Amino acid sequence: MEASQFKDLNPSPRLLLGPGPSLVHPRVLRAMSTPVIGHLDPEFLALMNEVQALLRYVFQTQNELTIPISGTGSAGMEAALCNFIEPGDNVLIAVMGYFGERMVDMARRYGANVDRLDRQWGEIFDPAEIEQQLSRKKYKLLAFVHAETSTGAEQLHVKEIAAAAHKHGALVVMDCVTSLGGMPVRVDEWDVDIAYSCSQKCLSCPPGLAPLTVSPRAREVLRARKTPVANWYLDLTMVEKYWGNERTYHHTAPITMNYALREGLRIVAEEGLEARWARHRANAEALWAGLEELDLTPFVPPSYRLTPLTTCALSPRLDDVAGRKRLLDEYNIEVAGGFGPLKGKIWRIGLMGYGSRRENVTLLLAALRKLLS
Amino acid sequence: MEASQFKDLNPSPRLLLGPGPSLVHPRVLRAMSTPVIGHLDPEFLALMNEVQALLRYVFQTQNELTIPISGTGSAGMEAALCNFIEPGDNVLIAVMGYFGERMVDMARRYGANVDRLDRQWGEIFDPAEIEQQLSRKKYKLLAFVHAETSTGAEQLHVKEIAAAAHKHGALVVMDCVTSLGGMPVRVDEWDVDIAYSCSQKCLSCPPGLAPLTVSPRAREVLRARKTPVANWYLDLTMVEKYWGNERTYHHTAPITMNYALREGLRIVAEEGLEARWARHRANAEALWAGLEELDLTPFVPPSYRLTPLTTCALSPRLDDVAGRKRLLDEYNIEVAGGFGPLKGKIWRIGLMGYGSRRENVTLLLAALRKLLS
Repeated sequence: MEASQFKDLNPSPRLLLGPGPSLVHPRVLRAMSTPVIGHLDPEFLALMNEVQALLRYVFQTQNELTIPISGTGSAGMEAALCNFIEPGDNVLIAVMGYFGERMVDMARRYGANVDRLDRQWGEIFDPAEIEQQLSRKKYKLLAFVHAETSTGAEQLHVKEIAAAAHKHGALVVMDCVTSLGGMPVRVDEWDVDIAYSCSQKCLSCPPGLAPLTVSPRAREVLRARKTPVANWYLDLTMVEKYWGNERTYHHTAPITMNYALREGLRIVAEEGLEARWARHRANAEALWAGLEELDLTPFVPPSYRLTPLTTCALSPRLDDVAGRKRLLDEYNIEVAGGFGPLKGKIWRIGLMGYGSRRENVTLLLAALRKLLS
Repeated sequence: MEASQFKDLNPSPRLLLGPGPSLVHPRVLRAMSTPVIGHLDPEFLALMNEVQALLRYVFQTQNELTIPISGTGSAGMEAALCNFIEPGDNVLIAVMGYFGERMVDMARRYGANVDRLDRQWGEIFDPAEIEQQLSRKKYKLLAFVHAETSTGAEQLHVKEIAAAAHKHGALVVMDCVTSLGGMPVRVDEWDVDIAYSCSQKCLSCPPGLAPLTVSPRAREVLRARKTPVANWYLDLTMVEKYWGNERTYHHTAPITMNYALREGLRIVAEEGLEARWARHRANAEALWAGLEELDLTPFVPPSYRLTPLTTCALSPRLDDVAGRKRLLDEYNIEVAGGFGPLKGKIWRIGLMGYGSRRENVTLLLAALRKLLS
């Protein structure tokens, strides 16, 4: 092995304006060079309590079981499903984009009988439509995506949807991977039972952890399981003992990623959620106005358009792949294309967390203007 | 939320001499403060290729499918099992400590009919004993732990065990969580089909990634599955497409942890595996001699004693919990106790990766001498 072929790490200084990972806050980067301590060190246990308190704030919940899952957002999704599904359970999933599809795939692997409601990518559900299906059949669980990263659409009326689910005896699982920390997510007020997110979007940390919160109602369902959770690594009946008072070893916590998450959340708390949401909105609105001027029309109507992630229709003057390559090569700017039915039709532009700043909007719009000229 | 209650991150400068996490190399800490790039950025794809090449070196394998799983070592164990087990498969697990037990638990969750062979904690298996059981019944998979972190014992004769398994048509899964990078692990020479490890022991990185390697023989078994892998996040039929030529998005790779792993592996390559193994042995031998002098007798006989992790019997003059608390509080040194049948009977002392240095041995022995005086 010729070690000298592996050079010093020296990536280009990318401006990450895609759907995630987003720009990591410099304070988070610094926190990650802090020496590691043990996962059962009293100082680390104290840090875990702080991470939990900060996560409760960002989720706007009092849920005791509020923790970071030791994987990326997809592991959070899987934890949110596998712990509450037993083989043969009826599960209803409202699909309006790729991440809803992924929920269907996961739920089936755990033996659920999955019924799905579908909306075209870019649309959202009317709560009445979901309630109608909930009244037709008894479901253990209803799952949906709050902020669809594949389309840029926000599922509105979460409170009404959750109320309908509870009326019919179903738990509510909500994906807020792209919304948490960037736009209102109110777990307790909306009465969502299980919500999860990721570290690398509006929380300005690298990918690697998935914040998760579980209501007392959902914990009862977990305790009443007749079968073991099919997934060992994500089994909350064991994970909760490490994060709870017992501190029983399950797996070694990713120490440095927890340092990062704590710092990212501390920055959220310093700014304040309301101010942070307003900042995301103000910068998104500036982006939308600039895109309209360039005839890169936002794909989703304003009433349910996400602020941390904007999708825009491509103009005939802008080639999807070549345009993104030029942005990256000439300006060090990353944005993402669409996929599935939206491949080649939209771009996805993120203004998330530390990346949601006026100067980034201005630079991106100026670069796009050059590309289109 | 009163943000000021969360102070600047400032952990005590621990000397991590437990079973992991071990001391992180300063170069790895620095690599982790490198700004993040996208998981589909051409520069990140190039870095993935480098990580794979370096992992092949440390595993001593040519296996194409050699990757870091996006979770801690336990996720590596689960990936090594869930991808190759279908409901009803016969699986044989050789258990000689806690991590063998964990394999049994995991394999059962995936529907395997698990037979187990047992050795007392601290002992190892005779290959003949394993072959005898393999000849009695047709198994799809044999799994065992190379370096038992709960006992400090090395399972010897891996090559013979693997040959017996293949003779009887079984795949071989080997846990090398505590051995990889610190003592000989020769995946190809030993003909092991699936091996996995972690980032936070002899590779001197923080916890968060699990190196995994899969032989062509095992990949055929994966391709021939009749049922989908029950675990979405760890499903290698999808993960291999992101790490392979297709680069199909599965989950967002933990970018910073991959920066860390690349740097940790680069340091391994610079030192060279043989030199690194010799360093671990030399420092372990110095530790053993010092422990003998203090009447803290190593628990495992020299012929199959691990070098990265030493277990020692406690003397009546050294209380387990109080002694470890004093080491931590007075000297900032972390070592670990035993658990399961070895709780209160042994300590576990790691000299792993960057932590395997003469000065650490000297300091620990001097501190122990004070405690015992």
